[in-house]
Amino acid sequence: MIMKNFALFSLFVLCALWADAQEPASYVNPFIGTTNYGATYPGAVMPHGMVSVVPFNVTPHKGNEYSNTDSWCSNPYVYNNEWMTGFTHVNLSGVGCPDLGSIIVMPTTGELNVDVNEYGTTISDEKARPGYYSTKLNRYNILAEVTATMRSGISRFTFPEGKANILIDLGHGLTNESGAHIKRVSDNEIEGYKLMGTFCYSPQSVMPVYFVVRIKRDNMQSGYWKFQDKLPGARHNWSSTSDTYKLYKRYNKELSGEKIGTYFSFDATEGEQVEVQVGVSYVSIENARENLDAEQTNLSFEQIKKQAYVTWNDELKVIEVEGGTYDDKVKFYSALYHLLLHPNILQDVNGQYPAMESDAILSLDNQDRYTVFSLWDTYRTVHPLISLLYPEKQLDMVRTMVDMYKESGWLPKWEIYGREAHVMEGDPALIVIADTYRRGLTDFEVETAYEAMLKHANTVDNHFLRHDNDFYLENHYIPFLKDYDNSVSQALELYVADYNLALMASEMGDKTTYKKAMQRSLGYRNYFDKEFKLLRPVTEEGKFMEGFDPVQGENFEPVHGFHEGTSWQYSFAVPHDVKGLMRLMGGKNKFVQQLNKCFKDSLFDMSNEPDMGYPYLFNYSSGDEWRTQKQVHDCINRYYKNSPDGLPGNDDTGTLSAWLIYSMMGIYPVCPGDMNYTLSSPVFDKVTIHLNKEIYKKEKIIIEADRKSVNDIYIKGIEINGSPYNRYFISHKDLIELGHIKYKLGAAPKQ
Amino acid sequence: MIMKNFALFSLFVLCALWADAQEPASYVNPFIGTTNYGATYPGAVMPHGMVSVVPFNVTPHKGNEYSNTDSWCSNPYVYNNEWMTGFTHVNLSGVGCPDLGSIIVMPTTGELNVDVNEYGTTISDEKARPGYYSTKLNRYNILAEVTATMRSGISRFTFPEGKANILIDLGHGLTNESGAHIKRVSDNEIEGYKLMGTFCYSPQSVMPVYFVVRIKRDNMQSGYWKFQDKLPGARHNWSSTSDTYKLYKRYNKELSGEKIGTYFSFDATEGEQVEVQVGVSYVSIENARENLDAEQTNLSFEQIKKQAYVTWNDELKVIEVEGGTYDDKVKFYSALYHLLLHPNILQDVNGQYPAMESDAILSLDNQDRYTVFSLWDTYRTVHPLISLLYPEKQLDMVRTMVDMYKESGWLPKWEIYGREAHVMEGDPALIVIADTYRRGLTDFEVETAYEAMLKHANTVDNHFLRHDNDFYLENHYIPFLKDYDNSVSQALELYVADYNLALMASEMGDKTTYKKAMQRSLGYRNYFDKEFKLLRPVTEEGKFMEGFDPVQGENFEPVHGFHEGTSWQYSFAVPHDVKGLMRLMGGKNKFVQQLNKCFKDSLFDMSNEPDMGYPYLFNYSSGDEWRTQKQVHDCINRYYKNSPDGLPGNDDTGTLSAWLIYSMMGIYPVCPGDMNYTLSSPVFDKVTIHLNKEIYKKEKIIIEADRKSVNDIYIKGIEINGSPYNRYFISHKDLIELGHIKYKLGAAPKQ
Repeated sequence: MIMKNFALFSLFVLCALWADAQEPASYVNPFIGTTNYGATYPGAVMPHGMVSVVPFNVTPHKGNEYSNTDSWCSNPYVYNNEWMTGFTHVNLSGVGCPDLGSIIVMPTTGELNVDVNEYGTTISDEKARPGYYSTKLNRYNILAEVTATMRSGISRFTFPEGKANILIDLGHGLTNESGAHIKRVSDNEIEGYKLMGTFCYSPQSVMPVYFVVRIKRDNMQSGYWKFQDKLPGARHNWSSTSDTYKLYKRYNKELSGEKIGTYFSFDATEGEQVEVQVGVSYVSIENARENLDAEQTNLSFEQIKKQAYVTWNDELKVIEVEGGTYDDKVKFYSALYHLLLHPNILQDVNGQYPAMESDAILSLDNQDRYTVFSLWDTYRTVHPLISLLYPEKQLDMVRTMVDMYKESGWLPKWEIYGREAHVMEGDPALIVIADTYRRGLTDFEVETAYEAMLKHANTVDNHFLRHDNDFYLENHYIPFLKDYDNSVSQALELYVADYNLALMASEMGDKTTYKKAMQRSLGYRNYFDKEFKLLRPVTEEGKFMEGFDPVQGENFEPVHGFHEGTSWQYSFAVPHDVKGLMRLMGGKNKFVQQLNKCFKDSLFDMSNEPDMGYPYLFNYSSGDEWRTQKQVHDCINRYYKNSPDGLPGNDDTGTLSAWLIYSMMGIYPVCPGDMNYTLSSPVFDKVTIHLNKEIYKKEKIIIEADRKSVNDIYIKGIEINGSPYNRYFISHKDLIELGHIKYKLGAAPKQ
Repeated sequence: MIMKNFALFSLFVLCALWADAQEPASYVNPFIGTTNYGATYPGAVMPHGMVSVVPFNVTPHKGNEYSNTDSWCSNPYVYNNEWMTGFTHVNLSGVGCPDLGSIIVMPTTGELNVDVNEYGTTISDEKARPGYYSTKLNRYNILAEVTATMRSGISRFTFPEGKANILIDLGHGLTNESGAHIKRVSDNEIEGYKLMGTFCYSPQSVMPVYFVVRIKRDNMQSGYWKFQDKLPGARHNWSSTSDTYKLYKRYNKELSGEKIGTYFSFDATEGEQVEVQVGVSYVSIENARENLDAEQTNLSFEQIKKQAYVTWNDELKVIEVEGGTYDDKVKFYSALYHLLLHPNILQDVNGQYPAMESDAILSLDNQDRYTVFSLWDTYRTVHPLISLLYPEKQLDMVRTMVDMYKESGWLPKWEIYGREAHVMEGDPALIVIADTYRRGLTDFEVETAYEAMLKHANTVDNHFLRHDNDFYLENHYIPFLKDYDNSVSQALELYVADYNLALMASEMGDKTTYKKAMQRSLGYRNYFDKEFKLLRPVTEEGKFMEGFDPVQGENFEPVHGFHEGTSWQYSFAVPHDVKGLMRLMGGKNKFVQQLNKCFKDSLFDMSNEPDMGYPYLFNYSSGDEWRTQKQVHDCINRYYKNSPDGLPGNDDTGTLSAWLIYSMMGIYPVCPGDMNYTLSSPVFDKVTIHLNKEIYKKEKIIIEADRKSVNDIYIKGIEINGSPYNRYFISHKDLIELGHIKYKLGAAPKQ
């Protein structure tokens, strides 16, 4: 358990609660990433859980530095904020746009007040561990504890004596969508739905979240509320409810509107514990109830809490680490924890899920349907890592993507609950499919997947995802057409996609596609400006854009040709042709010089995905591998911490965390589709990766480091299965089949 | 058919459409009362119909003198307004507070625009007759025609060639409530509900209206819309839908919110007719669909239109009139038409209806459940007249009231769709029950009804309707407690209620109650101030309120002790003890003098219910009956017209219309409960009232007038069944059993 107030941290408490402090789950600190724009949350959630129960503290209020009315606040919880207004039950982790963060349950005491701007409280004694979160609500002297199953949440509130209230507020949250419906179905149960979506301002990407809320208590008074808009003229004065929150005390049928909610009030005895169950579904209210009943019937709060913890622990055990500091282990397992939040489960307990881009309700039997595919982010580290650690999950994710194609005619790019949000660049699904297939995970509908890849690559008119494919297919680059377009960023993504299409074509025996796609993948060379030794936007006429400034674009400053970054942050982002780039730059020395400048002059951005491979690129220059070891360790230590600011930016549904996991283990996938890992020095003395034997035919990979001190970060020698190894690259196949890397480390670079 | 533009009126058209222009329905002008605050509507509706399809033209816009943002506008349609924004499907007729006026269907052409402030149009060529309304939508060159069944509406739109749209707008209307839910169930059908109520600012009187809308056309595009509130900060700029109407083009599941709607678009051929069916229920969406299917399946628009007309005609035939001018007949049958709008049917075709003051759904087999009981208004004229003309309806209305007591513990006062709105004064249900019973309509649960009456009269604590019963029971008056209270108005109502309770007690053999209640009914004498010869508020100490101004309260000016009126407008409102009042005033001469002053000095208000009996009070002074004849005719001619301003104020669910019907026939019920009619000169030469023979054992009542000219309004003699009759009063029993009154009229008062 991680306590927010670290001064209070007590080994005694820790040991008392969890006998085996060595369990991986005991190292997870859910507060990591909850500030510094990490956009993670400390709430209770299961691995890939549909439901997460998260303290919501971004309502605008004194004490809240960031709020959901701030433009960039995309998370339901910010560590340094002080004012909390309830527990949300659907949430996104580590994303860059606000959505979900809704279905809010808030306990209060005293006179009923349903105004979100007034009923909040400061909190203290926050504690979080996998599947559990608790805090004290200072103003009300309530202890709030929450835990979760896959598709439901449960809160336990311990009240002081006196009037107690439980508010279910559907009128605020993170999503930019609005509007909800509620209906009381019994004295202690309500059902309803709330519209979510418009993720990243994509107006047609909307979906309803259905819910059932059940309060495990009898003898309560209850009613609805709605904020009533101001009535015109004298009507405002005649009305007691105009321009205020109206309480519906006698009305119990359906209620719809924008700022609506339900309250339950009762007289609590001292220390009375009341539990609130919330079931969720993206299919129907009936399914939300079925999910709740299936996952919570006959289970106490304590049993659910324990089940969540045990499940997490079992998932995290896939990697065992030895050595390193306590903080290293916390950073590592917290990253693995964050890796396992998205994509998350979409189907209900009965197998039903909402189809991609339609209103159809489909059903699955023996497969998980995933959602929240942030593929531009996740193709680089998340999916290769899931393929290695949880190949059965990765297969279901790819099956999901292929099913989405079958349902909607297109593979996803940024998919959220059955809707494409059209966020970020390129065509990353092609990359994920090829990479997965090439890792030996071929048990999906490959022919259909390849058909989809070809459609994505070759369609010119009415392309759902690429609006510029015609010019690209002919000229192999995207032209700079107007100020602040993302032309180069878009093209760089298409190159990696084409590279992966070529690899997949090769697997499929399609030589024509292989040749064409591989040729296109090198089109980045059109952008290479020898003067700057950087990529530079190019016009339709094939000329470099005038007024190029290679550092324009820092800190989200508008920039021509690049998306959320500078030319420096994109110019090395051709992982499929690093040697080619090196030649363009004038050879390895010039390349290393230019790459070094990124780090020396702070032109590198750890939180921007195209840069994530930069620290590893020195490995392409023989003799410069020590620079990779140095930069990787520097990044691990500088940007990743066991503290709320322990992520360098949006975790991007586990992308930054996955980078950390690889990097702390000493291996990194050089380029999706390319089956090589490049090697660096691990943080731990020993890493054991337990493999899925059914799929990989091997039981484990062991990575060992022989070091005298934590400062020994430089590789003096490498042995594979006991034999000296001179390369800094190893294939996925060799890694699995040979299974044992041993690093000999020292405090100084190898001479 | 009545055409709005009377210059266009064509006898040819009239005759072509209705062969028999003498049919009562052909005289109905639904435009009467649609301005001058009459608050009626010209739309299509069946007698007591749950659904009315009404042109909604009170959206704030240039050209609309009154709008639903004006404080006093309580009607969906105002005759002189110019800007129309669709057809509403649930409406109230003649009431003084805005409610319902919702579920709006609007056809447009050209580019889709869902903003109610922009999609409206001027209209022309309005035509209305019972069960049918049509108009041209000028901006769109669409012919719109509407008709209705009991629980559903159907619109037929004739489009020009080109893009056509049908909007179903749930985001505006008359009701002060808000919030709706919609769901598309097929390519041409939606279902949903919208919250209505808070009638007259009674915050807990809310109810959902469920609906199904079906468009009888294939091959349409469709989507939802919602007005999105403005997003904060930079989000507003990033969003294409912030602070505007957002179109949901791909989302088809449930949608909730405040300003929401659905559109259907298609390419119309020239003259293409598209029909839109709307089914409604106050029980459930399923019932709304069942109502629609039961009432419209296999019926064409023309058949429904004809069915509505024939039904109206059959209802109106209850009275036949001969003589009088064309306008007299129009005024008369339009009044009878307005009488038959409320109370209206509440139960669905399957018999289900929402219980009074609870969420229960109850069911009836062989009885109609009524709703919209504006009893303070209607006890005076509406219910006595329905008892005479449609006793089977009146019995169901009283059965409904008794059922409401059984369901909620209380009889209604101002009931609207299962909720008490607590509007106006007194306890009028007692009056209606006693009056109905004494007219011989006794086939209801009399014991239960009497139990309810006693509870209403005797309960002191937690009275649902009377908050001042304790003091009243002891002191027989309501004290003036604070500025602008309605103490005298409230007490005056309780006196008539107690008078009726006494009469009922007598029927029930309950002498104790009879005595007490009759005694209380004379408590108005406490208010009589000899100085003014008027009623004046009295304090708790039994002293007259200081600062009394008997003309304070005109035109809704705030006034102490009286509700929406002056002391003059209330001081004669003791219909159960006119002779006693006369004595207090100092005898018949002083009484006539004071009453005359009302008319001479314009202190009388024809549109305020307590004044309605004033013109008839001269009949209590022997020799002054000619004054009644003069005043009644003067009121008929001055305040009632065959024109949109043809009602002197809110029709109050038929109350003013019922006064006109009585007055034009020459009989008037002097006081509910008192079984006497007082007599005046009829407008028509012959009136035949067809009686319900099963209940009244007689077939008809005939009232004849022998006159030489329309100016012969003075009674020269009266014959009952051929025998001279010297009195100006006749009992209900005699009227029915004898059945034939003949007036001999002349141009000058009888000497």
